[in-house]
Parts: sequence; C-alpha cells; structure tokens
Amino acid sequence: MTDSAAVGPLLAIGGAEDKFRDRLILRKFVELSGGPDARLTILPTASGLRDAGQRYLGIFEEFGAKSAHVLQVRTREQAFDADYVEQIRASTGVFMTGGNQVRIAAILGGSDVGNALAEAHQRGAVVAGTSAGASVMTGIMVAGGEYGRTPRANLARMAPGLGLIGDAIIDQHFRERDRVARLMTMVSYNPGLLGLGIDEDTAALIHADGCIEVLGAGTVLFVDGQSMVSNVHSRRGGTPLNITNATVHFLTSGSRFDLHTRTPYPSFR
Amino acid sequence: MTDSAAVGPLLAIGGAEDKFRDRLILRKFVELSGGPDARLTILPTASGLRDAGQRYLGIFEEFGAKSAHVLQVRTREQAFDADYVEQIRASTGVFMTGGNQVRIAAILGGSDVGNALAEAHQRGAVVAGTSAGASVMTGIMVAGGEYGRTPRANLARMAPGLGLIGDAIIDQHFRERDRVARLMTMVSYNPGLLGLGIDEDTAALIHADGCIEVLGAGTVLFVDGQSMVSNVHSRRGGTPLNITNATVHFLTSGSRFDLHTRTPYPSFR
Repeated sequence: MTDSAAVGPLLAIGGAEDKFRDRLILRKFVELSGGPDARLTILPTASGLRDAGQRYLGIFEEFGAKSAHVLQVRTREQAFDADYVEQIRASTGVFMTGGNQVRIAAILGGSDVGNALAEAHQRGAVVAGTSAGASVMTGIMVAGGEYGRTPRANLARMAPGLGLIGDAIIDQHFRERDRVARLMTMVSYNPGLLGLGIDEDTAALIHADGCIEVLGAGTVLFVDGQSMVSNVHSRRGGTPLNITNATVHFLTSGSRFDLHTRTPYPSFR
Repeated sequence: MTDSAAVGPLLAIGGAEDKFRDRLILRKFVELSGGPDARLTILPTASGLRDAGQRYLGIFEEFGAKSAHVLQVRTREQAFDADYVEQIRASTGVFMTGGNQVRIAAILGGSDVGNALAEAHQRGAVVAGTSAGASVMTGIMVAGGEYGRTPRANLARMAPGLGLIGDAIIDQHFRERDRVARLMTMVSYNPGLLGLGIDEDTAALIHADGCIEVLGAGTVLFVDGQSMVSNVHSRRGGTPLNITNATVHFLTSGSRFDLHTRTPYPSFR
C-alpha cells in the first residue's frame, strides 16, 4: 500500500535549537511542511511541563503556517483520543518537543495517536523532533545511562523507540554533553546501526531515500560501525570496552550522508 | 651506526598516573629500565615547580631502582651542562614530568642534554613521559589551542616536539579534558599522522618495532587518518570542520596496536 516515494522526511534536531535569531531549523520545518499551506501539530508528550509546545506554536504561526496546534497527549488514555487522531491525520508536519523520550514511546507506542503519527510519516508528512523528540524516532533508542567519557557497557540504557527509522540510533545535545562514548557504546551493541550524534542547534534531515542532510550551527557525528569489532558482549557494568575499527565522520551544515551506502558528502561551500 | 633492534621503548602516559596504590605504570617504567639495575633520570623541565620530580624520585627508589636522580634542567644553559649529559648517558631510563611541553622542546631541543636523550633512546634506554612529557615525544606535537568540542581549525596549536617518534601525535588527559575534537583536528592537518589520545592513569608503551601496548585504568583512542578527508585547508579560526572517514579504535589495558600496519589487537582477557 505504501508508496515509498511518498514517505516524508524526518527532521532530527539535537536540542536547544535557535528560537530567537535566524531560527533556521524551525523555519526549515515549516517550509518542508508546506509553508503557507502547513498544518502543524506540536506533540509535547516528552515534557512534564504544562506549557511545553507553546513557544513553538508562536514561532510556527509567525513563520506563516496555515495552522498550528499543541496536542495535549500526556497520558495513555489521551493517546487514543479520536479528535487527536484526526488532528494528526490532517497535519502536514508534526513536531515533538524535548523532555524524556521514554515518555513519548511509553505513551504513544501502539496507540491510535502513535499509529496516526507513523501513518502521517508514511504518507509524506514531515516529522520533526528535538532532543528526546529526535532520539525517539529510531527503532531502538537511547533511554539514559551512566555518564562517562570512555566506552563502558553501562553507559547506555536502551529502549524501544517509535521506529520511524530503522538501522540507526540518535543521540542529541551531543558534544555539549560529551556523549561520544555513549554513542560508540550503543553502536558497539549492534554495529549494523548507524550512530548519529547531533549537536545542539543542529539537525539531521533524513529523507526517505536515505539521504541525510546536516543543517544548523554545529556538527553531526556519524558513527559507521560496519567494520567495528568490540568486546561489549563480554563486559559488564563499568568495565572499559575495546571498540575497534569504527569509522567516524564529523559533518557540518550543507553536508550530506547516504544512509544506504554509508558515504559522506561533505560540503565545501 | 644505530642498531634499530636496540632502540628503547617509549612510555607515553596520559597524566595523573596512580602514585598511591598499585602504581602499575610507574612500576612498569622501573621494570623496563632494568628493575634492580635501573639507573634513572627524572627530567622536570616541563614544570615550573622547583620540587617537580621529587615525588617520582621517592617512588622509583621504593621500587628498588639502583639509582635515581632529578636533573634540574630549567634553562637553555643547563641543557648544555656536561655533568647532566653524563647523567643521561649513564641512564637506563629517563622520565619526563608533566607541565608545559613547549618548555621541554624549547629548552632541550638541539641541546647537548636533548641530544643525549635522543641517543639514550637509540641505544635502548626507556624514555617515559607523563602529560606534557608524553606529548613532547613526537615530531610535531600539540602545544595548546582553544578549547572546543567539535573540530575547528583553531582548536590545536602545534609546535615541534623532540621527534623521538615520527608519524604520530599524542594528546593526554584525553577524555578527562574532552580532547577528541582537538585530536581529530590535528590528524586532519596531516592524515598520515596516527593520533593517540591517552586517558589519565593510562599509558601507551611504544616499542621500537611499532607495537604499541595499552596499560592502565583508562583507554587510548587511536585515530587512523589514512582514509580521512577534511576541509581543514579551506577553513579558518572557529569555523567547524568536516572530517570524514576517520577510523577510530578505543583500546583498553592489555590491547595492542601495530603502528606500521595500523591494526588493532584488542585484548579479550
């Protein structure tokens, strides 16, 4: 049934995106969603704050979206609300705020609203998320973990995400919170996963054909584990890991990466 | 004249090595230098502190070295002192303390003491260094730079080191001071260099045949730039860099790395 050419792009934002100056990334979301034809839904599910999403509402309206609504899906019950499902179905773009990605997955996973979100993605709507909203896009996602600077088995607690994209895992606030070791550790658990470490005010725009564009102020670190060998399977807890043959690419704004061929196309603008 | 089989090992320590408990790394230095036959010289040149080196003296004596001396080479003039040269010539092991690596290079470079140190290495003496004393071992070394979390051209200020090892560049206090971006940037300037990022209380023991052993509590990050492509040549100052196709290996204690073939041999003990 699904026309893969119609699948919408995912805009995974590393958190703390500019909301006061150029607002390049948020502007891009509105543009991709249709600009003056954009019908936008903001999902503040990740956040425990009642007014999460309101600031985005104002910005999206300022950018000239046709409509924008904050959907108060805070409980499992609300995730089956028929009006909310309709709202998602009518949307050309959905924006997930930051907070706790486990809240999103636990509340939306398998629900009517969650299914509507997946369907919206399949029919071409833009799905954007910042911080927790970015991490939740993958099939398996980071859920937390110990802080640490060198790879250790206990650095990453992983959990099921929404599965809008497979074969990848997304970490955010990446260099600001020094999550290199965490991302490396997660990829070592299954080197078939592509690791994306997205800096703040930076985004990976993932097109359905597997082309990933980098935009914003910082860098996306791509960790390609296809040649990786590690001893994560024989280590526990805080024991340091050996991780060998990871291929890494630091890509800045304007660069692209092909998810299928694992090829970087750095921008030389 | 030089018998390459006789060239001594280099013990590059990431700083803050254990001085109170097992003291594994310092013990290894004394062992490699001959144990009860070890005649050791401590070079506190990197440090501005008058008593730098005294603590090592006590530890090396406690480990049963035959002799240990702190050589007060603090000025360019002292670096031509004939007694000091004799002291180095009689040594089976030389230990360079931490401080500022530029002080070591600027005071010892091309001096009689500096040349005696290179000769000692060539004839088989162990040369160890911690922190600044590790970084100074390479031909081009890190001298400082801006702090930063993503690769940028201005992250690394580089300067000539003592050149005991070529084709490599050593950074220290590596994960503790979050120097991943700095090491990546340095390797991007010449991807033929092998980058070694050595954590605190961790060491890379570099044998003359190119086998590098990892020891201690943390990790050595090996950055192999042979497939690396970047735009460092067309970027200035604080502009973020694209760095692609870096191959990285996090190796823990007991692991080895072949400098010539660029092959990691992770320990599975």
